[in-house]
Amino acid sequence: MLHPDRLLPADPQTRAIARDLLAGIVDLPLVCPHGHVPIEWFEADYRFPDPAELLIRPDHYVLRMFASQGFSYDQLGVSGGEPAVDARTAFRTFATHYDLFLGTPSRSWIDHALYENLGVTEELNENSADRVFDHIDAQLARPEFTPRALFTTMGIELLATTDSAVDDLARHAALAADPSFAGRIIPTFRPDSVTDPDHVAFAADIRKLSDLTGENIATWSGYLSALRNRRAVFAAHGATATDHGFATAQTANLDPATCQTLLDAALSGTATPDQAARFRAQMLTEMARMSAEDGMVMQIHAGSSRNHAPVIQSTYGLDKGFDMPTATNWTVALKPLLDQLGFAPNLRILLFTLDETTYARELAPMAGAYPVLRLGAPWWFFDSPAGMARYFDQVVETAGFANLAGFVDDTRALMSIPARHNVWRRATAGHLARMVAEHQLTMAQAARLAEDLSVTLARRAYKL
Amino acid sequence: MLHPDRLLPADPQTRAIARDLLAGIVDLPLVCPHGHVPIEWFEADYRFPDPAELLIRPDHYVLRMFASQGFSYDQLGVSGGEPAVDARTAFRTFATHYDLFLGTPSRSWIDHALYENLGVTEELNENSADRVFDHIDAQLARPEFTPRALFTTMGIELLATTDSAVDDLARHAALAADPSFAGRIIPTFRPDSVTDPDHVAFAADIRKLSDLTGENIATWSGYLSALRNRRAVFAAHGATATDHGFATAQTANLDPATCQTLLDAALSGTATPDQAARFRAQMLTEMARMSAEDGMVMQIHAGSSRNHAPVIQSTYGLDKGFDMPTATNWTVALKPLLDQLGFAPNLRILLFTLDETTYARELAPMAGAYPVLRLGAPWWFFDSPAGMARYFDQVVETAGFANLAGFVDDTRALMSIPARHNVWRRATAGHLARMVAEHQLTMAQAARLAEDLSVTLARRAYKL
Amino acid sequence: MLHPDRLLPADPQTRAIARDLLAGIVDLPLVCPHGHVPIEWFEADYRFPDPAELLIRPDHYVLRMFASQGFSYDQLGVSGGEPAVDARTAFRTFATHYDLFLGTPSRSWIDHALYENLGVTEELNENSADRVFDHIDAQLARPEFTPRALFTTMGIELLATTDSAVDDLARHAALAADPSFAGRIIPTFRPDSVTDPDHVAFAADIRKLSDLTGENIATWSGYLSALRNRRAVFAAHGATATDHGFATAQTANLDPATCQTLLDAALSGTATPDQAARFRAQMLTEMARMSAEDGMVMQIHAGSSRNHAPVIQSTYGLDKGFDMPTATNWTVALKPLLDQLGFAPNLRILLFTLDETTYARELAPMAGAYPVLRLGAPWWFFDSPAGMARYFDQVVETAGFANLAGFVDDTRALMSIPARHNVWRRATAGHLARMVAEHQLTMAQAARLAEDLSVTLARRAYKL
Repeated sequence: MLHPDRLLPADPQTRAIARDLLAGIVDLPLVCPHGHVPIEWFEADYRFPDPAELLIRPDHYVLRMFASQGFSYDQLGVSGGEPAVDARTAFRTFATHYDLFLGTPSRSWIDHALYENLGVTEELNENSADRVFDHIDAQLARPEFTPRALFTTMGIELLATTDSAVDDLARHAALAADPSFAGRIIPTFRPDSVTDPDHVAFAADIRKLSDLTGENIATWSGYLSALRNRRAVFAAHGATATDHGFATAQTANLDPATCQTLLDAALSGTATPDQAARFRAQMLTEMARMSAEDGMVMQIHAGSSRNHAPVIQSTYGLDKGFDMPTATNWTVALKPLLDQLGFAPNLRILLFTLDETTYARELAPMAGAYPVLRLGAPWWFFDSPAGMARYFDQVVETAGFANLAGFVDDTRALMSIPARHNVWRRATAGHLARMVAEHQLTMAQAARLAEDLSVTLARRAYKL
Repeated sequence: MLHPDRLLPADPQTRAIARDLLAGIVDLPLVCPHGHVPIEWFEADYRFPDPAELLIRPDHYVLRMFASQGFSYDQLGVSGGEPAVDARTAFRTFATHYDLFLGTPSRSWIDHALYENLGVTEELNENSADRVFDHIDAQLARPEFTPRALFTTMGIELLATTDSAVDDLARHAALAADPSFAGRIIPTFRPDSVTDPDHVAFAADIRKLSDLTGENIATWSGYLSALRNRRAVFAAHGATATDHGFATAQTANLDPATCQTLLDAALSGTATPDQAARFRAQMLTEMARMSAEDGMVMQIHAGSSRNHAPVIQSTYGLDKGFDMPTATNWTVALKPLLDQLGFAPNLRILLFTLDETTYARELAPMAGAYPVLRLGAPWWFFDSPAGMARYFDQVVETAGFANLAGFVDDTRALMSIPARHNVWRRATAGHLARMVAEHQLTMAQAARLAEDLSVTLARRAYKL
Repeated sequence: MLHPDRLLPADPQTRAIARDLLAGIVDLPLVCPHGHVPIEWFEADYRFPDPAELLIRPDHYVLRMFASQGFSYDQLGVSGGEPAVDARTAFRTFATHYDLFLGTPSRSWIDHALYENLGVTEELNENSADRVFDHIDAQLARPEFTPRALFTTMGIELLATTDSAVDDLARHAALAADPSFAGRIIPTFRPDSVTDPDHVAFAADIRKLSDLTGENIATWSGYLSALRNRRAVFAAHGATATDHGFATAQTANLDPATCQTLLDAALSGTATPDQAARFRAQMLTEMARMSAEDGMVMQIHAGSSRNHAPVIQSTYGLDKGFDMPTATNWTVALKPLLDQLGFAPNLRILLFTLDETTYARELAPMAGAYPVLRLGAPWWFFDSPAGMARYFDQVVETAGFANLAGFVDDTRALMSIPARHNVWRRATAGHLARMVAEHQLTMAQAARLAEDLSVTLARRAYKL
């Protein structure tokens, strides 16, 4: 069901080169230094409850496509208060309209999961829906399909979760201490809920931050110490990176008195929108400063207007497919941070964008000059064959390959991880094959770059 | 003169697939639900007066290219007050410099009209100019070349004109009642001249609106009733859609008292630029609300800075090739409207952009989530082979195919309609063929999508 | 070492067409109407001192790539005060890490210089570094490798330097009077240091402007006369063009009293940022007005945020690889100028952008309509194979070929000039070959356009 040449260039000569390159990388281990798989799934007795929970309910790409065609999320088993439909009914709806996904990366990920990982042997559609459901359901009951087993059989070398700065990391500690699981799973320090005064959990998480650290978070220096303290705890649990997701990448470089004023406003819940924005901007610079101290790699994911549809958020919660990208100005936004830290020896910042116009205009020029910057993989809607082609086309000439951070799957859909890396490796092989065919690279150079892009650059970028 | 493989992919294997796909769609009827062909042309005795009026004078693409090379519009027979040159002289100038259009869509449209529709058998250039002129002139005298006859021989299934909200639609009514013409031509409700206080005809058309409807347009509710009234008249004459063309897509959601204040300012001619902008923004939301009530499909064409060259406008009038695109921010601009109506069951909004950077960043993500949104065809300068390739490349992965609105020719050049659909179908076949060649689609899936893109999606988008 | 088919399309049929087209243009003379080669290099006794000075130290592309990987400029022989490493050591560092440039235009330029111009016969890497250094060093001692000799052997038809408005052009005069050198080298009038109040040399150069011209530059009319005077001197020395490089392309059309106020502020060093911006904007319009009078072609290079990293500027000086592009809005920015001069008979303005999103959205639509505008070649980071492909893809359909200004190499690296034209000619051949393969052009049309793009359009654009 999956053609061995899928996604490779159509021209026969170029395809032959791409096949050779792909053969050298397709079975390399999966390096997964950034994503959102829940740590709970790796407890000893966890099983996926049903095929809908495996493939549909947690996948915001799937949900949004159905919404766009007038379906309610309840029809897919996602409850908006009222009890939603059962897993079989949800799966049947999904299968009946599976052709909505033709031409989308979701289709290629789910096809890969069905035919490569789950052992499905017939096309998914209205007629086969119940049989496929039953097949997957039976698979999920087998020990080979627990997350722990999949971690190994999928060939995952390392998996990073993303964790609140005020998470006590007890689950990570327990998993690390469990001799029955040998996989390497590390946390990532994500402090947005304590660095963004507009975050829904800000007040509660600031209290937790204070409780966990014993610092006087009412003073600017105490607040920063508390964050430094939490970072050290994360590092002690194996974390090598932090993650920061704001609507803009604006940074700032304010004096301590101003910072204290902004902190006062944030803590008292009286921050104006402008004050909240300046606080977030300053905190990106502070996080970079701490990264320069403790060596944790800083990831910035900027440009998403979160929860564009309030009715979806109020009914179904966060991360349900209605975050929308906006234009981002990285050159201007990062300057205050870079003026301070652009050449800091121990600092590394990975940039992820939802505004592809900045690839060639801003990100590649900056990553191709500042030693602290690396350019992250194509993100979110651009984690796709055409998105990857545009990425290579627009960044490599200016940034080179060495300033890229390799691939990250950035997903909470465990089943999609092999598929995503597979698509990236095919896109990589295709792009490099074209460069070989056009005599821009020798085959030996391309083979080495293919391995760099598949595993080496990611290991290096995340200090693994 | 027209190669059967023109615009198809060069790689022989992919071309063979594209040929097969094209064969299945190239002769499908032409669905034309948005355009600017004058209804007057379909009166029983209308003939095109001469080849220049057919191919040159009304074509702003042709005019602007000559302007860019230092010609005056008068040399092309477009009068700036002084009597312009005659049709033959204009045509000779056009033919002499026809190579200016190499590589442009205008060239492919005009070539198609010459060689496929008008029966020209020699290359157009300085030497052949007079002969080709005479040939076309003779054709235009024949009954086969009246608009009515062309409508049938071109295979037009339906044609929508675009009409002022204060048009009495008498011509449409007369044509519908004329038993000697069986073609389906419907109006489109275009209210810009009564919803934009800065429109040159605002004051006059507001008076007509009042006269036509008998509503008290001085009150906000009366003004809205007048518009509702006119929409009903359009619907009764067969209209299924409205059209709205502003420089930005900004929408608003203001309280009635503020709306009344803005209306007062607009009617008294004292609206500040900011008030006029807020009035336009509010009116987009009001039009969407009425569409949710009456089911008329709403088209938004945003991002053109109209009449960038005042001297051209003052000398030659509107729509003479000097409208220039500007950057557009759809994610932010549409939010007030979508907050109100993003999930309204009976609402459909088609979005057309002149800022391609918004395809992947904003429009595909929004159309791929909000049920009321569909993404319109590549518009204006992007109604071209490369423009279509970029459109497919940048929107399908995120929006899928089902959230596209098919193709519209959007032209006042009747002779270019078959050519434009032909280019679209070739671009469609080429794009889908590449997906087949790369094993992203089966041939059967591609064939069905080719038909969807050629006719089905447009019929569905416009509720035909 | 240089494959004859490099950069040509991979598909064999298309490649065969591209080869034919390339054969017709690859040996045409090099027309170089815009660049930054120092006029001093053409003094009779000038020799390049060593390979590092030839290939590394003056090349900001090379420097920035090393900076991005954590090297200091001192390691490449660029002094930051302390004595830097010697040429051989710098060259060894460069060679050892030459693979950083895989996939970048720098690699193709340097490869071309090594293997085509300098007679190197082995691959450059850590092991060959010293041998290659010695080989180049020996070459540079030979008379065939003086700039004067290279000018001829490289096939340069004309070279324009870029010169301060207050340069006395003595070197140009001397060179023109030197019977031992027959090459045509002309100056370009670059007045930024006397039209931008924020320019580091503004105060000093304004004094020189006054001294050189004897005009009372304290009055608006005297200041303009001084500039007119200098332009006439440049024209008398063979200049056909001016050049203007600002962060934005904003123009203005202010009344004389306002202009005098802004000049007063600029001259007294008290201009606010807003006043400085308005002064620059007004001066673009004034320069266009003078171009309409004296016929000198105006070049606008806009969109670079100069000296993004203050520490690099303060340590190593200007133009060291840390200028970063920003978003540019040409449609709005040029309107005040175009309202005045958009149809001026004797005016020509060439536009160069670092924001590729404006190609299809703004620049091609404007250049395809306004007679005074032409679209300059892909600039800086976009002077690259993929950059050229995007340029052709995005501008030709709307602007046609006749509104392009051909190619300029825009470099201070003399050795890279043949390589840059070669890459452009390959990209041109490839693009046109695809159009031939897709039956959009005949072979004869493509061959003529290939020559236009290689030499004719540049000669015409710069009035050579």
